[in-house]
Amino acid sequence: MKTYVQMSREELVNEKALLEKQFEDAKALGLKLDMSRGKPTPSQLDISMDMLDVLNASSDMKTEGGVDCRNYGGLEGIPEARKLMADMLEVPMENVIVYGNASLNIMYDTVSRSMTHGVCGSTPWCKLDKVKFLCPAPGYDRHFAITQHFGIEMITVPMTENGPDMDMIEELVEKDDSIKGIWCVPKYSNPQGYTYSDDTVRRFASLKPAAKDFRIFWDNAYVVHDLYDDKKASLLEILSECEKAGNHDMVYEFCSTSKVTFAGGGIAAMATSLTNIEYIKKQMTIQTIGYDKINQLRHARYFKNIDGIKAHMKKHADIMRPKFEAVLQVLDSELSDLEIASWTKPLGGYFISFEAMEGCAKAIVAKCKEAGVVMTGAGATYPYGKDPKDTNIRIAPSFPTPEEMEKAAKLFALCVKLVTVEKLLG
Amino acid sequence: MKTYVQMSREELVNEKALLEKQFEDAKALGLKLDMSRGKPTPSQLDISMDMLDVLNASSDMKTEGGVDCRNYGGLEGIPEARKLMADMLEVPMENVIVYGNASLNIMYDTVSRSMTHGVCGSTPWCKLDKVKFLCPAPGYDRHFAITQHFGIEMITVPMTENGPDMDMIEELVEKDDSIKGIWCVPKYSNPQGYTYSDDTVRRFASLKPAAKDFRIFWDNAYVVHDLYDDKKASLLEILSECEKAGNHDMVYEFCSTSKVTFAGGGIAAMATSLTNIEYIKKQMTIQTIGYDKINQLRHARYFKNIDGIKAHMKKHADIMRPKFEAVLQVLDSELSDLEIASWTKPLGGYFISFEAMEGCAKAIVAKCKEAGVVMTGAGATYPYGKDPKDTNIRIAPSFPTPEEMEKAAKLFALCVKLVTVEKLLG
Repeated sequence: MKTYVQMSREELVNEKALLEKQFEDAKALGLKLDMSRGKPTPSQLDISMDMLDVLNASSDMKTEGGVDCRNYGGLEGIPEARKLMADMLEVPMENVIVYGNASLNIMYDTVSRSMTHGVCGSTPWCKLDKVKFLCPAPGYDRHFAITQHFGIEMITVPMTENGPDMDMIEELVEKDDSIKGIWCVPKYSNPQGYTYSDDTVRRFASLKPAAKDFRIFWDNAYVVHDLYDDKKASLLEILSECEKAGNHDMVYEFCSTSKVTFAGGGIAAMATSLTNIEYIKKQMTIQTIGYDKINQLRHARYFKNIDGIKAHMKKHADIMRPKFEAVLQVLDSELSDLEIASWTKPLGGYFISFEAMEGCAKAIVAKCKEAGVVMTGAGATYPYGKDPKDTNIRIAPSFPTPEEMEKAAKLFALCVKLVTVEKLLG
Repeated sequence: MKTYVQMSREELVNEKALLEKQFEDAKALGLKLDMSRGKPTPSQLDISMDMLDVLNASSDMKTEGGVDCRNYGGLEGIPEARKLMADMLEVPMENVIVYGNASLNIMYDTVSRSMTHGVCGSTPWCKLDKVKFLCPAPGYDRHFAITQHFGIEMITVPMTENGPDMDMIEELVEKDDSIKGIWCVPKYSNPQGYTYSDDTVRRFASLKPAAKDFRIFWDNAYVVHDLYDDKKASLLEILSECEKAGNHDMVYEFCSTSKVTFAGGGIAAMATSLTNIEYIKKQMTIQTIGYDKINQLRHARYFKNIDGIKAHMKKHADIMRPKFEAVLQVLDSELSDLEIASWTKPLGGYFISFEAMEGCAKAIVAKCKEAGVVMTGAGATYPYGKDPKDTNIRIAPSFPTPEEMEKAAKLFALCVKLVTVEKLLG
C-alpha cells in the first residue's frame, strides 16, 4: 500500500473521490457525538454514588479532632481531607490546603491574588509593565485562558515525551525577570498523556529564576489516573525535589477529585511550602470563612485513605481503557500505513493527542463537526488558541461509549484522510 | 435610684468597690463563653440534618431539565436552585447566579474582578489612583476587610434606624467619581438589626453616582431571618426599584443559606441585572467550570420551594428568640435605669448592637475577656477596626445556650457598669 505522499496526483484524485463518497455515507448516519471535553461518562459517575450515603441525618458530623463540619471555620480544610489529598500528592498534610469544588478555581485565585497582591510580598503583578508565563504546548486551554484573561503574555514552550523543553525554560527564566510562572500538567499531560521524566522534574526543581516571585503551577490533575495496572507512569514528587534544591517556595501544586468522584462535586487542594501557605491564608481569610467541610468529610469518610482512592481509580480505568483502545485501534488500522499523522498512546489521563499534517487540524475538526462529531476546537491546545502549524487535535475519549467511540474515531480518521488528500492536491 | 452621672464622687467610689467585688466573684465562676461571631449553635445545625438524606446512592441526580448534577457544566447554577434563591430575594430567577458555599466569597470575587477587570468595561480599579467605598457603620467587619485588603479607601457613613445617612451618601456619590461602591446589610443589619426603610431603599435606587461603575453591594444576609412571626421587618426589593429609577445595573445583591442550612455547607447566590450577569459570566467561565451542583440539588430538593425555607426559618427563630430575649432582659434590668448605655432590640438577624459611654467599648470587651466571655473585638464594626468614639460593641447571642447567654449578659452588664464608673472617676 502506498502512503499518500507516494501517490501520484491521479491516485490522489481517485482517493479523494472515494473518501468523499465515504464521508457522505458517514454524514448520512447522523452521528451526534461529543469528544470535545475531558468529561466523565455517566457510568463513571455511578461509581461514586455510594459516597452520597456516607453522611446522613444521623451521622456524627465532627472531624476526628472534634470540629463540627456543619459550622463555620477551618480555613485550611479538615485534617482528614488534608491527609487524603496529601497522600494523593505524596506530600505532608501540613503542606496542603483543601478548598472547594475545583482546582481550576484555586489556580485562577492564585493568579488573581498575584495580580492584586503579589507573591509573598513581591510587587503586585498588575503594577508591573510586563508579566509573562511559559506555556508548554500543546497544553490545557483553561490554563491559557486564565493567563490571557489577566493580560499575561504567554510564551509557548515545545513539549517532548519527557516534558517541556528544559533548555529553553532554563534559559528564559534565568534571564527574564518578567517571567513569573509556568503552567505544567506533569503526569499524563493534557493533551498528550506524557509524564515528565525524573530529569525534567529535577531540572524544574533546580531552576534559578531571575524573578523571586516566579512560581511553577504544577497541575497534577491526573496523579492517580492510570489506565493500566501493570503499566503506570511514575512522577517524582516535586515539593521535596524543590526543597532539596533549596527552592522551597517555587511550586504551587494542584489537584482535585473532580475525575475521582463527581466532576464539579468533588474537593480540590493545593500543596505548597509552609511559607507560601502562610501568605495565601492571609488572603484566604479575607475571601472566605472556610470551604464546604461537609463535602470534605464525605470524601474522607468514603475513601478512608489513599488505598480507597486507588481501588476506586481502578474502576475508572476499567471504563476508560476500552475507549482509549477503541480510538487507538481505529487510528492504527486506518492511518498508520499512510504516514500522514501521528498520535500519542497514553498510559493514563483523559486525552490522546493527534498530530495531523501541517495546516490540516482546523479543517479536520470542521469536517468532523459537519458529520456530527464534535472535537475540541483546533488551536485550543496552544496559547491564544493559535496552533502555529495547525497540526494538533485533542481527542477526549471519556464521554462516549466504546461503541460510539469507535464510530467517532472512524469518522475522525476518514476526515483526516480526506482533509490531507485535499491538502496534498493543493 | 440614681443614674451614674447623678452620683457624687463618693457614691461612685462606693459603687466601684461593690462592682469590683462582684467582678471578682464572677471571675471565680470560670466562665468560658463565646459571643464573638454570628455562629449558629449546634441545635440550629441539627434542624437541617434531614437534608443529608435527600440525595443517596439511588437518587436521580438530574435536574428537572435533565442535566446530570454529577458532571461538569452549568455555570450559573441549576434552575431549581436559582429559582429557590430568587424567591428568597423576590427577584426573577434569570437575575440569579448560584455559586458555591459562601456569599462572602462572591463579594470578594466581585471586588477582585472589579480591581483587575473593571465593571462592565470600565477601567480596572487597580489602574486608578484612588478608589473609595462608602461604609455605613457600625457594619460588618468582613465587608470592611475586603475593601481594606484591596487598598480601597473607606469612608464611614453613620447608620440610623432607617438605614445609612442618605443625605451624605447622595452628596458623596454624586460629586466623587472615585467612590465605586457601598456596603449594605439592608435587612436586620449587622450589628444593629435595623432594616432600611422604603424611603431609604428608594433613595438608594435613585442615586445618581458620578462613577458609571458605582455599585451597591447589597448583602441581604438576613433576608429570611425573622425572630418573630407577628413582627417582621419588610424590605423593599431593590432590583425592581433600581429598574424603575432607570438604574438597572447599579446593584449586586448577595445571599446564602449559611444561616439557613449549614454554615459553610450551604449555597450562595448573587442577584443582579442581566447586563451585569453577562459581564460576570465572561470572567466566571475563566475561573471555574461550575460550582457544586450536587449541593445545589440537595438544597432545592430538600426545601422544594420558598415555603419550605420559611417553615425552616421558624425553627431557627424558636432557637434564637430566647437568646435575644435573655440578653435584652438582662440589659434592661441591669442597665436601663443607669443611663450609661443604649442597645438595639432587633426583630431578626444575628446581632444586638450596644452603645456604651464614649471611650468605654474597648475596656468593656477586655474586662469581659478577663472573666471568660469573648465578645467581638471593639472597633470591629467600623472601617479599619477603628470606632472613632470607642462606643460600639456587637453582641452575638447565637452560639451559647439561653442559660449561658443569661450568664454572659450579666457578666457583660457588670463589666459595662464597672468600666463606666472607672471612666466617670477619670
